[in-house]
Amino acid sequence: MSIKRVLFVVAMEAEASPFVSALSLAPCKSVFPASLPFRSFSGSHNGLDVTVVTSGKDATYSTGVDNVGTLPAGVMTTLALQSSSFDLCINAGTCGGFSRKGAEIGSVFLTKGAAFHDRRIDIPGTPFKDYGTGKMESLSTTNLQAAIGAHEGICSTSDSLDHDERDDERMEFNDTSVKDMESAAIHWACNICNVPHFGVKVVTDIVDGERPSAEQFMENLGSAAKKLQETLPKVLNFVAGKEIKDL
Amino acid sequence: MSIKRVLFVVAMEAEASPFVSALSLAPCKSVFPASLPFRSFSGSHNGLDVTVVTSGKDATYSTGVDNVGTLPAGVMTTLALQSSSFDLCINAGTCGGFSRKGAEIGSVFLTKGAAFHDRRIDIPGTPFKDYGTGKMESLSTTNLQAAIGAHEGICSTSDSLDHDERDDERMEFNDTSVKDMESAAIHWACNICNVPHFGVKVVTDIVDGERPSAEQFMENLGSAAKKLQETLPKVLNFVAGKEIKDL
Repeated sequence: MSIKRVLFVVAMEAEASPFVSALSLAPCKSVFPASLPFRSFSGSHNGLDVTVVTSGKDATYSTGVDNVGTLPAGVMTTLALQSSSFDLCINAGTCGGFSRKGAEIGSVFLTKGAAFHDRRIDIPGTPFKDYGTGKMESLSTTNLQAAIGAHEGICSTSDSLDHDERDDERMEFNDTSVKDMESAAIHWACNICNVPHFGVKVVTDIVDGERPSAEQFMENLGSAAKKLQETLPKVLNFVAGKEIKDL
Repeated sequence: MSIKRVLFVVAMEAEASPFVSALSLAPCKSVFPASLPFRSFSGSHNGLDVTVVTSGKDATYSTGVDNVGTLPAGVMTTLALQSSSFDLCINAGTCGGFSRKGAEIGSVFLTKGAAFHDRRIDIPGTPFKDYGTGKMESLSTTNLQAAIGAHEGICSTSDSLDHDERDDERMEFNDTSVKDMESAAIHWACNICNVPHFGVKVVTDIVDGERPSAEQFMENLGSAAKKLQETLPKVLNFVAGKEIKDL
């Protein structure tokens, strides 16, 4: 059966807006109760029903702060997947990339898996350590990667934008190509909801380089969002008419 | 209007079971779709409708691992609060306690607030740093504290059982009395759902002591669960017939 309904999960408004505009998606009221901060947009593209959800803003801050991180990402993904039936979930967003894994600013990676690098639960004699790392596989996207010329790699997630030595050790253990603040949470939510999933991540900053992530991130967020906007319609056009196994 | 419907959010089965048994609560099918890992139990106590939710087990591990941490806690709390109307949400569970804040093994703390100590998002000129820390106030419970002889303090949350120097700095900044792996996530979910909330936390390990948390945690989990079982009915009996403002 060919894929019909696709959910895009995007953490930040700046990441989602160009794509939502390009596809002329309209605000949608059936995904989240209006009282929650999350936002959703829907429409059609190339025979597919497309829904985009974003985490919205934290009402605590009058200047507006996107609800980034694993907690809002996991909650909005689960709520969206429970609101109706989706054939495929795609996390689209920005990430830090490792140059040792071939990442450059603007590189596009499709996830082959995800894991956490900041959940340290080392209780000897229990599987809590593995649970904390939480390695999960993504849907295989070999054909899609070739079609759009994307890299493939594991995305490691934490709730911090920076990374310290312990994070670095754990990212190496996770065989990380790119790091972000949501991917593993979205994988987890898709797993409990039994919906196939992968991530499309555009590199905003080089993790194993000289400059701090925050500096690079703010500098490159705009161009990365534009790169996402170019990439996501290509992903959608490839998905249209195909079955999950053909990706 | 007096409190009628109370939701207890408990991360681990070992923490919830004695309380569920003592109140003769029965498995309940209306809170979560059966396909999700979360579990729920409901019944009546002293004129209150009581629902207890737990995070269930991760199906990846045949030996059974509780879905601990902020992600499952936030997801299950939001889903439960969206499933029907609750007047009050209480997070009940174990925690690490700071002896410098008066904590001993078995001490009971009611939260006066919560925050995160592992979400480092330091982007200068933006409120992301404060968003990452995520300080939130709990419902005021001055009268309840006096009635059951509990301590009061801020619970700081991370997805790690251990803590390193950077965590310690952030826990000090958060004015932390107790630390856990769920409280701030549950506060956040209650905030977005607009439901009053506080936590009841029993100390299993001393954070600013000599011994590793994991060792103390496993040793004291059973006795802490028993202490929770003694404490929670006292909390419920105090809540019964009262209004939110009287707690």
